[in-house]
Amino acid sequence: MNAERIKEVLEKVSAGRMSVAEALTALKNLPFEGTEWATIDHHRHLRQGCPEVIFGEGKTAEETIDIASRLIEGGDNVLITRLAPENAALVLEKFPEGQYQARARCLTIIHQEPQAEGRGKIVIISAGTSDRPVAEEALITARFLGHETDYLPDVGVSGLHRLLGQMDRLAAGSVFIVVAGMEGALPSVVGGLVDKPVIAVPTSVGYGASFGGLAALLGMLNSCASGVTVVNIDNGFGAAFAAALINRL
Amino acid sequence: MNAERIKEVLEKVSAGRMSVAEALTALKNLPFEGTEWATIDHHRHLRQGCPEVIFGEGKTAEETIDIASRLIEGGDNVLITRLAPENAALVLEKFPEGQYQARARCLTIIHQEPQAEGRGKIVIISAGTSDRPVAEEALITARFLGHETDYLPDVGVSGLHRLLGQMDRLAAGSVFIVVAGMEGALPSVVGGLVDKPVIAVPTSVGYGASFGGLAALLGMLNSCASGVTVVNIDNGFGAAFAAALINRL
Amino acid sequence: MNAERIKEVLEKVSAGRMSVAEALTALKNLPFEGTEWATIDHHRHLRQGCPEVIFGEGKTAEETIDIASRLIEGGDNVLITRLAPENAALVLEKFPEGQYQARARCLTIIHQEPQAEGRGKIVIISAGTSDRPVAEEALITARFLGHETDYLPDVGVSGLHRLLGQMDRLAAGSVFIVVAGMEGALPSVVGGLVDKPVIAVPTSVGYGASFGGLAALLGMLNSCASGVTVVNIDNGFGAAFAAALINRL
Amino acid sequence: MNAERIKEVLEKVSAGRMSVAEALTALKNLPFEGTEWATIDHHRHLRQGCPEVIFGEGKTAEETIDIASRLIEGGDNVLITRLAPENAALVLEKFPEGQYQARARCLTIIHQEPQAEGRGKIVIISAGTSDRPVAEEALITARFLGHETDYLPDVGVSGLHRLLGQMDRLAAGSVFIVVAGMEGALPSVVGGLVDKPVIAVPTSVGYGASFGGLAALLGMLNSCASGVTVVNIDNGFGAAFAAALINRL
Amino acid sequence: MNAERIKEVLEKVSAGRMSVAEALTALKNLPFEGTEWATIDHHRHLRQGCPEVIFGEGKTAEETIDIASRLIEGGDNVLITRLAPENAALVLEKFPEGQYQARARCLTIIHQEPQAEGRGKIVIISAGTSDRPVAEEALITARFLGHETDYLPDVGVSGLHRLLGQMDRLAAGSVFIVVAGMEGALPSVVGGLVDKPVIAVPTSVGYGASFGGLAALLGMLNSCASGVTVVNIDNGFGAAFAAALINRL
Amino acid sequence: MNAERIKEVLEKVSAGRMSVAEALTALKNLPFEGTEWATIDHHRHLRQGCPEVIFGEGKTAEETIDIASRLIEGGDNVLITRLAPENAALVLEKFPEGQYQARARCLTIIHQEPQAEGRGKIVIISAGTSDRPVAEEALITARFLGHETDYLPDVGVSGLHRLLGQMDRLAAGSVFIVVAGMEGALPSVVGGLVDKPVIAVPTSVGYGASFGGLAALLGMLNSCASGVTVVNIDNGFGAAFAAALINRL
Amino acid sequence: MNAERIKEVLEKVSAGRMSVAEALTALKNLPFEGTEWATIDHHRHLRQGCPEVIFGEGKTAEETIDIASRLIEGGDNVLITRLAPENAALVLEKFPEGQYQARARCLTIIHQEPQAEGRGKIVIISAGTSDRPVAEEALITARFLGHETDYLPDVGVSGLHRLLGQMDRLAAGSVFIVVAGMEGALPSVVGGLVDKPVIAVPTSVGYGASFGGLAALLGMLNSCASGVTVVNIDNGFGAAFAAALINRL
Amino acid sequence: MNAERIKEVLEKVSAGRMSVAEALTALKNLPFEGTEWATIDHHRHLRQGCPEVIFGEGKTAEETIDIASRLIEGGDNVLITRLAPENAALVLEKFPEGQYQARARCLTIIHQEPQAEGRGKIVIISAGTSDRPVAEEALITARFLGHETDYLPDVGVSGLHRLLGQMDRLAAGSVFIVVAGMEGALPSVVGGLVDKPVIAVPTSVGYGASFGGLAALLGMLNSCASGVTVVNIDNGFGAAFAAALINRL
Repeated sequence: MNAERIKEVLEKVSAGRMSVAEALTALKNLPFEGTEWATIDHHRHLRQGCPEVIFGEGKTAEETIDIASRLIEGGDNVLITRLAPENAALVLEKFPEGQYQARARCLTIIHQEPQAEGRGKIVIISAGTSDRPVAEEALITARFLGHETDYLPDVGVSGLHRLLGQMDRLAAGSVFIVVAGMEGALPSVVGGLVDKPVIAVPTSVGYGASFGGLAALLGMLNSCASGVTVVNIDNGFGAAFAAALINRL
Repeated sequence: MNAERIKEVLEKVSAGRMSVAEALTALKNLPFEGTEWATIDHHRHLRQGCPEVIFGEGKTAEETIDIASRLIEGGDNVLITRLAPENAALVLEKFPEGQYQARARCLTIIHQEPQAEGRGKIVIISAGTSDRPVAEEALITARFLGHETDYLPDVGVSGLHRLLGQMDRLAAGSVFIVVAGMEGALPSVVGGLVDKPVIAVPTSVGYGASFGGLAALLGMLNSCASGVTVVNIDNGFGAAFAAALINRL
Repeated sequence: MNAERIKEVLEKVSAGRMSVAEALTALKNLPFEGTEWATIDHHRHLRQGCPEVIFGEGKTAEETIDIASRLIEGGDNVLITRLAPENAALVLEKFPEGQYQARARCLTIIHQEPQAEGRGKIVIISAGTSDRPVAEEALITARFLGHETDYLPDVGVSGLHRLLGQMDRLAAGSVFIVVAGMEGALPSVVGGLVDKPVIAVPTSVGYGASFGGLAALLGMLNSCASGVTVVNIDNGFGAAFAAALINRL
Repeated sequence: MNAERIKEVLEKVSAGRMSVAEALTALKNLPFEGTEWATIDHHRHLRQGCPEVIFGEGKTAEETIDIASRLIEGGDNVLITRLAPENAALVLEKFPEGQYQARARCLTIIHQEPQAEGRGKIVIISAGTSDRPVAEEALITARFLGHETDYLPDVGVSGLHRLLGQMDRLAAGSVFIVVAGMEGALPSVVGGLVDKPVIAVPTSVGYGASFGGLAALLGMLNSCASGVTVVNIDNGFGAAFAAALINRL
Repeated sequence: MNAERIKEVLEKVSAGRMSVAEALTALKNLPFEGTEWATIDHHRHLRQGCPEVIFGEGKTAEETIDIASRLIEGGDNVLITRLAPENAALVLEKFPEGQYQARARCLTIIHQEPQAEGRGKIVIISAGTSDRPVAEEALITARFLGHETDYLPDVGVSGLHRLLGQMDRLAAGSVFIVVAGMEGALPSVVGGLVDKPVIAVPTSVGYGASFGGLAALLGMLNSCASGVTVVNIDNGFGAAFAAALINRL
Repeated sequence: MNAERIKEVLEKVSAGRMSVAEALTALKNLPFEGTEWATIDHHRHLRQGCPEVIFGEGKTAEETIDIASRLIEGGDNVLITRLAPENAALVLEKFPEGQYQARARCLTIIHQEPQAEGRGKIVIISAGTSDRPVAEEALITARFLGHETDYLPDVGVSGLHRLLGQMDRLAAGSVFIVVAGMEGALPSVVGGLVDKPVIAVPTSVGYGASFGGLAALLGMLNSCASGVTVVNIDNGFGAAFAAALINRL
Repeated sequence: MNAERIKEVLEKVSAGRMSVAEALTALKNLPFEGTEWATIDHHRHLRQGCPEVIFGEGKTAEETIDIASRLIEGGDNVLITRLAPENAALVLEKFPEGQYQARARCLTIIHQEPQAEGRGKIVIISAGTSDRPVAEEALITARFLGHETDYLPDVGVSGLHRLLGQMDRLAAGSVFIVVAGMEGALPSVVGGLVDKPVIAVPTSVGYGASFGGLAALLGMLNSCASGVTVVNIDNGFGAAFAAALINRL
Repeated sequence: MNAERIKEVLEKVSAGRMSVAEALTALKNLPFEGTEWATIDHHRHLRQGCPEVIFGEGKTAEETIDIASRLIEGGDNVLITRLAPENAALVLEKFPEGQYQARARCLTIIHQEPQAEGRGKIVIISAGTSDRPVAEEALITARFLGHETDYLPDVGVSGLHRLLGQMDRLAAGSVFIVVAGMEGALPSVVGGLVDKPVIAVPTSVGYGASFGGLAALLGMLNSCASGVTVVNIDNGFGAAFAAALINRL
């Protein structure tokens, strides 16, 4: 620890075993080289209680397996997101105990059950069938991080009864992740029904003037419901990670 | 009138006072110069039963008064949209029988009640307080065109009970105009509750990533509810005009 | 049915077999869980007289066949839009009575002729050869929903005589669907020739500064012809669905 | 209250003073007109412990005073955001006990101290001098909602020592609101230093290619730090409201 | 032919074999159904002296061959633009006398030399190697339409000597087509060196912030050189067609 | 003049009054500093026969008067475009013989009639009343440059008969300038009716999704009519300048 | 100075006048609050030889005067950029020795001549008259930072001879700042003529499709000349600051 | 050489073997045809000391090999950027002494070590693993141009300790190239830590609202750190080329 090292230097100076000039040089680079930084980072990961998550997109199967192997050696559970089926097959050859969920494109290797985290349930809600992959990436991530979850798919705003018929499950939630493409209206509706934090995830579902999710993104950023915050298009993982931080407060 | 002129030519030919060649030359340019076109246009306005509507923006008070005077001389009622208060004052000096509605920025001069049109009510629904000017431009236009209307302001999606508490009035509508800024989600919700045509009007209400109404516009174009069509940002007049055409079918 | 359940509770209370407190609890969640909502939804589909339409894009052949099977069991006709040829082949293996129209990428399975709907003809007009797939998706949808149709392809504004030569057919229309890519000018021209509702469909036809249909979309939203409303890029189905709602008024 | 009304009906039925048929009719419209909805809404506000907040932009001084008066009569504290100085002066004439903070453009009228809420401190961090108005809107809102706050202005990423010199205060936070214009990089840096939820607020501060805050918004949505969620440009109020919901979990 | 039909009607009237009323009815629909329009169109093509040009993109080889066959039967030369190599091979099987230029993706079938048109040379200038396909589409089109051409490829603005070394050839031009991607600066430079019309063609050459040719397009629209007009991205054909109209004046 | 200077050097060399080495040094920087360039520029303006045009926007009245004075001293006629009324008043005080046209915001000072230029008429066509300022900037510029003009205002595509009734005037044109805001469809229609070059000018007329003229600009760039080229939004001057170059060929 | 303070502490410890514990406390916050960071920052400014520059936009005259006063007390020269004329007047009242350059909107207060910096001349080149304010902000900044400068205004690419006539001055430059609006082509041309670093500054000069400088910005980012880097729209100060860092290497 | 030709002309005049008029004609076209231009260009390449670099994208293997062969014959080293692996294999068959670096997609053929250039090290810093290809294109280019380099990959802003732990290496740099995708925040942080020029390279790394690198690009253009300039998205080569020009000053 850095305070120790400063003390050590000071004691040497005090004892006449180090000159002022030498001490000055020794202290000079403290802010950047020092242990504080590494420590903070280390602590951060410890506190978060979350093993590394591997972003599978743009990595070869070999690179993915290599990182996973090192994590497993370190005793960690492993979550790989955005993993293409062909790469998943190769990873599973190596780690047959893993589980690949094709729709969410997520692979998990669980060696010890994640410790229960969180004050309540993270409720994942999605609008249409095509939004499920993103919603389920969030679902798997939230569970992987040790949180209890509930999942309400296919309750888009053009058929409100589907959502309103589930008020009990809404009432039981602690943090909400609402996933929608097209016009991205669902988070506003959910935000009006609950008094808990809502994380909105726009998806790239749609065509034409959805512009790859831009319509849903802008809709969510302009939500008339207070308490809604937004993550990047298709970022189910990021929403679940933020929800986990919130639920753990 | 053109039909007269053709007839005249034909009569001359019939009477031998004009040769076929001369007649052919006389008729040659008919398609473009001719009366048919004017007739059609005339008929079109007659059929629509709508006197001219004056778009007040970008016109001086003098120009506006001038056009209004000619319409009134022709026996027409007058609707002026997007009329600034200072210009409205000058128009009212000239036509004290007129009525100016400041929020909607519309001025009407009604000399004979518009004939009742339409199969049912045009229902105008708006999301937030700030959307009212556009909604009321639609309201005034629809009434001016002779349609019965109903108006449900301030029923945005973040407080669904406000809208759902009015199901009876929704059930009584024939055509719906739904006006919303910000995320523009209301038309999707209304579209899921009624089985009638819904015309969505995005407004420029909002700030930041609403980009002057673009967010609402894109949201409405990507509506997950079938049967929703969209007009330009803040175009309350256009929505009412289209609703009138539909309601008159 | 919910009304039944409420009645049942009330009868028990009336008969003294249930306390007021018990009844209150039983009724408490009615608004959201209940049958009213489902009923509304049910009624809506009944009233619309339209069997489910399956959006084929992004669904596997298996998923598509599965949904279609359930609809057919329920006695419904089936329309599948945006169906890729390879999936269509598999669907037709299962339902050889189906008909696939490759250009429109639509497959219909008709077991009972749709009941005639509508006050008049839905006229579908398209600008260029490349706009035909979208126009024909609209055409097939409108017919599937039980409406009489007329179809005027290839009458773009750079050769006005093609459109003007069809004034009789324009005059016979009740609702108009106008499909155009590139500069998207055709709806303005049609809107100036008819006094009926016009639904404009921008297509992604074009290249360069058409930006995937954005140019046509913006053009249509800014149409100088009153009475024009717009749907999403390439959304032939949506235009036909809205036209059907209008024509059925 | 609705539960009351249902109970009343039930008691009449139980007492034989109302028939089952009459009761059924009375209960029939409950889901939409009814009390449940209002109740939920009411409950929601009660649970949130937050009196109404008035969005001052686009309202006249008269409208603003009118709404404030009704809230104060109801015993509520009042927060008015986005209030122009000239309107603030008029409000203060009416309510001299109010306090207007010019930079944040917020006016508060506090009649009873808000009850202490939240598990910890909401820490508001801002990048540059020009971001202060938005940051202070968040600050005032968070305090108004009953939360303890800390405020670190002017710690933008181009002079990291300003932020890193405050690690103790970062460590003491429960939820973070990070406000930045221009490139919007600060939330990523803060997100890497803390293990708590971070709400990023892009501001319209900048010129040229900042495009009214778009650059900062996109930057924050693409943050490489997990756990960062985003609200609309300049939406200090919304960030504080979401932070309050989180901190209250 | 319509003129024939009118004449026929007139002759009948003249001969007393048709009443004026009958004739009026017969002539009534002339403006829209009629021959005038077709005639104009026909004249237009005749006057332009240009056989049909086939846009090959999005057409099957069969469709392309079919249209080409009909043109050839009519005695026309044929130009097919945007023709993929695999389709070109099939067309050449059918019309071995055709010539396919792979870089420009154009195929010509010339049965009679185009008549010399134009007051001078159409000079095509392009900036970089990658702009050549578009430039050569323009070159082939201009020649096909009967114009003399000159071609200066690879004279982009970062090496001005390449362009300035060709002042004689610039001086000899009548109309200029300037093709450039990336920053699209070349038309401004050429526009400053010549006193003749310059048609600028942005290309989709570039990457990153070229946004598919948008950068070049905007650059050209904002050209500081007077006399520059612009066509769509990659529209070599359109530029040549416009240049041909100009050169033929 | 530079040619003079070169000649002078050569004459000194020829007369033995200057050594070859001295002459070489004197001529060394010719290509860049030199007269050739200035000459070319001079020639260019001479050839174009057009006196300087002053862009009034962003210049003070003093600056504008100063430039105008120098031009007038040089014997030139003067055209000032984009001149605000208040600056125009000051210019007219100085040059009372000038003429200011308020709608077009153009001021001309003509001391000698411009020499007749061009092969035919430049026809300026505009869509709506609000497009007139831009159209009339083009009109005034074209006349100033010595061309015969014709002007057809208010013939937008939603009332085709207005344009089609003027086929004779279209037939008489040599080059066409077509000015339109909103959806910008008019150039496509005109391009389909004439066989002459069409220069399209988008205007910033419109609101909402017209995005300051972007909709019209994109529409024109995607025109389905061949032979249409485009200039910047509101650039009436540029269109007229290009038309003048074309008409002078 | 901080190093001084550390040294002081160490000397006290060494001399026995301060205990290790006291010293530790004194040094405790070094890494972040502390001296290294401040030192680095301080050193950075010392090394850069540049006194603080005040961004005047969005600051009141009072705030500006306040900051300036403190800098002057510290013995620094002062540069205020983006200073509105009305604020400049107030600053000059306070500091009559200051100099305000209205076009560049810059005010300098020089108490000691800046020390000569740099290996060569920073050459500022601008395209049009309207680009001068930005170019002169760069010019004043570069001089303020102690660099020799050269200035070539009004040498846009549509009149190349103006630039090419100045090859000697180009050859004498060490770093180039090239300022242009509209199509932003000048940096590409300059980049092709010199073999030194070129910093491109897009300006918001233009209208219509210049979109506030976006066209110039994109053009410069896509420059075909290697060695060109770009700063934000209108950022003359930033370009000069970067040029100064380069020229001082 | 041109100077030769001028001299020749002068000698003939001096010797009386050529008249002044003949000489004048001979010199007339010098500025454009002449050698000066070629010379300048030649000198430019000589001065830059950089052999041609081949942009491999969009070129066939044959074209690439052909250009490389000619460069090698001329004694130059060769760098091919953006070279696809399949083309690289073919190039290496021909030049087995070449080296292909797959991640950077660069191939070098070095026959003589590049001469050491530059005053110090070019330090290349990148944010995430996925930014490495672009960073390494810069690295290879800088080395190829004869500069000493240092490389700090994977030091993105969400883990500041990684960067701050390398302050010594930062301190040793002369010019910095900072490569980042997603929010593009790293250049601002580096710009705040060093007092040397920083060239920012946005990458297309990211998804959703990164819009192909636009988010990073805008972020960098709006950097709050002075002294940062920007190149096009993914333009590692361009950044290195500019850095080389700077480092060689």
